[in-house]
Order: sequence, then structure tokens, then C-alpha cells
Amino acid sequence: MITYKQAGVSLGAKTRWVTAIKAAMKSTYGPRVVDRRHGGFAGLFCLDFDEQILRRNYHRPVLVGCTDGVGTKVLLAVKLNRLSTIGIDLVAMNVNDLITTGAEPLFFLDYLAVHKLDPDRLREVIAGIAEGCREADCALLGGETAEMPDLYRRGDLDLAGFAVGVVERGRVIDGTNVRVGDAVIGLPSSGIHSNGYTLVHKLIAQGRCRLDRTYDGLGEPLGETLLRPTRIYVRAVRAVFQAYPATRVVTGMAHITGGGLHENIARVLPKNCDAILRRSAWRPQPIFELLRRLGTSRAEMFRVFNMGIGFVLIARRRYLAGVMEALQESGEQPIELGHVARGTQRVRIQ
Amino acid sequence: MITYKQAGVSLGAKTRWVTAIKAAMKSTYGPRVVDRRHGGFAGLFCLDFDEQILRRNYHRPVLVGCTDGVGTKVLLAVKLNRLSTIGIDLVAMNVNDLITTGAEPLFFLDYLAVHKLDPDRLREVIAGIAEGCREADCALLGGETAEMPDLYRRGDLDLAGFAVGVVERGRVIDGTNVRVGDAVIGLPSSGIHSNGYTLVHKLIAQGRCRLDRTYDGLGEPLGETLLRPTRIYVRAVRAVFQAYPATRVVTGMAHITGGGLHENIARVLPKNCDAILRRSAWRPQPIFELLRRLGTSRAEMFRVFNMGIGFVLIARRRYLAGVMEALQESGEQPIELGHVARGTQRVRIQ
Repeated sequence: MITYKQAGVSLGAKTRWVTAIKAAMKSTYGPRVVDRRHGGFAGLFCLDFDEQILRRNYHRPVLVGCTDGVGTKVLLAVKLNRLSTIGIDLVAMNVNDLITTGAEPLFFLDYLAVHKLDPDRLREVIAGIAEGCREADCALLGGETAEMPDLYRRGDLDLAGFAVGVVERGRVIDGTNVRVGDAVIGLPSSGIHSNGYTLVHKLIAQGRCRLDRTYDGLGEPLGETLLRPTRIYVRAVRAVFQAYPATRVVTGMAHITGGGLHENIARVLPKNCDAILRRSAWRPQPIFELLRRLGTSRAEMFRVFNMGIGFVLIARRRYLAGVMEALQESGEQPIELGHVARGTQRVRIQ
Repeated sequence: MITYKQAGVSLGAKTRWVTAIKAAMKSTYGPRVVDRRHGGFAGLFCLDFDEQILRRNYHRPVLVGCTDGVGTKVLLAVKLNRLSTIGIDLVAMNVNDLITTGAEPLFFLDYLAVHKLDPDRLREVIAGIAEGCREADCALLGGETAEMPDLYRRGDLDLAGFAVGVVERGRVIDGTNVRVGDAVIGLPSSGIHSNGYTLVHKLIAQGRCRLDRTYDGLGEPLGETLLRPTRIYVRAVRAVFQAYPATRVVTGMAHITGGGLHENIARVLPKNCDAILRRSAWRPQPIFELLRRLGTSRAEMFRVFNMGIGFVLIARRRYLAGVMEALQESGEQPIELGHVARGTQRVRIQ
């Protein structure tokens, strides 16, 4: 006789797990989350605020949805047994994509797949997700934990996230209005964020570097630097829209992930425009120089890593000073990277 | 010198893949999907229809979000190299959860994690997801494909999905209005749907059954029966709401997944109610009897499998005939399973 528990899935542990994550979820709830008395098949979120004073009636609401994982950064977190920040990465990868459209994040859901459901160990992952959600001002509305011993090796896990936001139809930002002369502004990354880890794993596997070694300029063991959580740019971008609520000031935004500055900025450039970035405008963190020295070409580095810039805004030049100020007041250290010129939808770093 | 491609991730294959899936996505698009000229960091979906004739202005729209995977059914699909229907399972697992709230599905996003990005092989997965989305009348708004050779074994893959819908605040169904005397209606499943596969894999690993054998009553090899896609109940449920647009007729709904009839119906029962189901009202498909014979107790069967009922509606008895008729006209074969009685939030099958 086989019971489901013997087959590797403990419904009891799952019940304990669901109870454990409720607190994390609740820590992200605002007044727009509908508290369900029954069910729990899905999460409910009011598009409009209930309170009259906060009420916002969208005229032509456009919902924005995106999904992403953290790639093989999760393997590094498992290897170093430090799972507390990988959830921040997960939220960041999604909400940073979402806000490029001009949308505000509303809610988030996670999919966590594991070899074995160990509530004490995995609680950290969910706590990180909740922390990311609070920083992005969105509700952790639900999630799924899948225990699959036959698919994942002992200790391994994978994470996927989903974010939903809303934007007024007339305020969707998609690069259409980018014009020659617009300024290109960069927001610093915290390091390599959540991209390029397959390459990093290869370097480690080949013995070219060690995670516990403190290399020149890092000031901490390499593993620590590599696990730095991805920055969340929601508040910075919101600060710009609060400073310029009516006009169309920001014409394009890009989240710099796999493909680097080249590929990601190009996604929001009109066909007849290039972005010209001054290489001297910013200095990539030491981790990038280290990874290059360990055996990656400079061209490859720019194709795989963010090279120190995690998010890019393109804005009308006449508003540049105001946008920079709004970003600075939100706590950012924005960098004027360059400008938009006539071209062929390419990013040129000079 | 290591390039990203040598490290296992081919950005070129990824570009080909993105191109390949565009057709699948477009096959699901209605007029509410915003066609983006640039960007592609996220998908955009208009909450209201543009056309005046179709315009729907939600009074107090509540967004509904849910996420789910297909569990280890994906391993069976990989083993039998039949990936064409696992995407239907993925959509079904999500939208069936979503509609229990009374919501209509709007859009769907998928996360596909693989050992290696093989566009020709994986195209089937996306085609299945698109097919499921069309059946659920929701748009496949986006997705993420993660190539992670260090996390997934050769040939392996995992799938997670995410569905968003909308419901008027005053029409949210959460079981609160379930009353003693309400009727319990079941909609047939197509088999074991997407739950209990870890147990099935164990039976196979122990040599208790063979996937290529045609057991009594199945009429096809066991592998075929086990891979039958999960049914999607969106149109059936919508037919009920179209027949009864104004009144509150359906008081609770449950998607029968892991935990079976007991756990899932209980989720929408008030604390002082039981659901009494007549065991003789329906006949589980032969696959359930086979799995029991192979070595699972009857009690365990009901705790893990749907036992032939994939979706449950609880409705006021006075509307029972009308609800049954609406379901039948939508092509369903609804079963009157039983009724709601005084109790302690339990499901009793007699």
C-alpha cells in the first residue's frame, strides 16, 4: 500500500507551510486586497480604492502583466545556503520589467518548486519575496509551492514570479515618443543582479575563481558580492511621475537584464534612432572587472551583464534637470549616460 | 575565454524561440490586447473594451490572480515524449481556480524552465498553452523561457502558469452565501487531470504498472490515459452566469485538485455546513479503479485524486434545474452529487 506521503509529498507539511507564509503575505497587504473568508483558490485585489479619499477611478485602465525567474542565481543561493535575498531578486526582475510601461505594480504571485518542502528552510525565500513586495509597494497575493522530488535534486529549488500592474491607456510608455535629442539616464545596479550566472557557474566549475575568496576591490568574499539582491526601481520611477504627473516627460524605459545595455535599450528605441552612451559617464563596480579578468571578453561582458546600470530612463532634454532631481530626492544616484541620436535602433557606447 | 553560449545559454536560439512563439500568442489575442510597437518587457491588456458596442465599464472591478504548475505530470509527458497537451493542463489548473471566484479569465502568462532550449521540441508546449488559452477565452499575454542546464537534467522541464481575471465586487463568489439545502453539482473530469502523479510515478518505478500496457476498461495504453489533458470549465461556468446574470444563483464553486473532493469542497463551505455527496451519483472512470487495485487505499484515493469530478458548483436548489440545463446546453454532463446540510465544514460521501 502506497500513501501519498510515502510517494514524497506530505500534505501535512504543506498545510504547515501555508500557515507559515500567511504572515509574510499579510505584511504586504494594503486596503485593496480582498480578505477572503473562504476558498483561497485565487487572490482578489480591488482595482479602485474603497476609501473615498483615496478613490481612484481609472478612465481607461490597461492591465500590465509580466513573468520572470531568477535564472541560475538560485543555484548560487542554494550552494551558499543563503536563501534570504533570492526572493528580493525575484520581485525585482518582475516589477522592474513592469514599470518600464509606466504602470504601477499592484500585486505579485510566486511559484516555488522544490525537491522537498522544508518549511524552516524555505521560510527565508518567502520572507525575501515579501520584503521585495513591500519595497515595490505591491501585494503578495498568492503563490504555489510544488514539491517535486523526481524533478529537482536534493536541496535544489526554482522560483518564478508574476507581477500585475495598471496604467492609464493614455500614459503607456513604449518608446514611441522617443526623439532625437532625448537624454538617457541610468540608475546604478547593485552588481550583476540576476543575469549571467550560468557564465559565473562555469567560471567556478573551471576553478577560475573561488566564492570564499575576497578579491581586490570587492571588500567581501566573492559569493557575497554575487548574491547581492537585484535593486528595485519602483520608488525611483514613481518619484519622477509624481514630479511630472501630467506631461509626457519620460519617453522610454528599459530594465537592463540579459542582453545588457545594448539589447535592452534598443527595445525601446524607434527604428531611426540610436542611443549614444558615454563610456566615461559611469564606472562599473569592481565585480565586472573581476569577471572580465577571469576570462570573458569585454564585448561579451556588455552582452551578458548590466555593467553597473540596472535601469534606464529616456527623457526629454528640457526636463532632464527636473527628472534627475526627482530621482536624487528619491534616494537614487542617477547618471546622465548620453543621448538619443539619428541611427538604426542601436546602442553605441563610446 | 568563455562566451555565454559556451556556458550553455544560446541567446541566438532564444531569439529564434521568441519568434517561433509569437504566432501561438497571437492566436489567442482579442481586441483588448494592446499591440506593442516597442519594448516587450511586459504584456498590456485593456480592462475595458474599446468598441462602444462591446464597452464594459466595471463598476467596482476586482482583479483575481492565481498561479499553479502541473506538478510531476510534466515528467510523464517528457518520458513519453508527448508535450503537446501539457500546456492545456497548465492553463486548466489556473483558470479553473480563477473562475471559482466568479471571475472571467482575461490573460495568462507562462514560465517554462528547461535544460536546453530546443525550439522544435518545445514549440508543442507553447502550442498547447495557446490552445488552452483559446478554450478559456483568455489571451496568452507573455511568458518566460529559462534555459538552466545546471538545474534541470537533460530533457527535463518545468512549467508554471499565472492567470488574471476580473469580477465585479458585488459578484464575488466565495462560499459565504452557501446555505443548508443548496444543491451540489459536479462536472466530470477527463481522468486524473494534473494531480497525484508523484504517486503514479512511484507505482511505475516499483514495477506495479506499465505505461504501454492497455489495462481492462482503459481501451488505450495507460500512458495515454494518464496524459489526457485537464478539462477547462470556463465555458460551462460562463453558460450558467449567462443564464442567470442578475441573481445570486451559484453560491460556491470548487476546482477539485490535490486534496480531492473532501478538501476542495470544504474550502467553500461555511463553518456550520457539510456537503453530503451520494457515492452512487457518479461512476469514477476506470483509471481510478485501476490505480486503487495497483496498491492505493480507497481513502487515500479520495484524498489525492478527483475521482471523476473535476469541478463542483453549489447552487440554490430552486434554480437547480435551470443551472443543470444551462450546463447541459454548454455541452457538459453535469451530475447532481448531493446537497448541503448542517455540519462542521466537512464533505461526507455516503
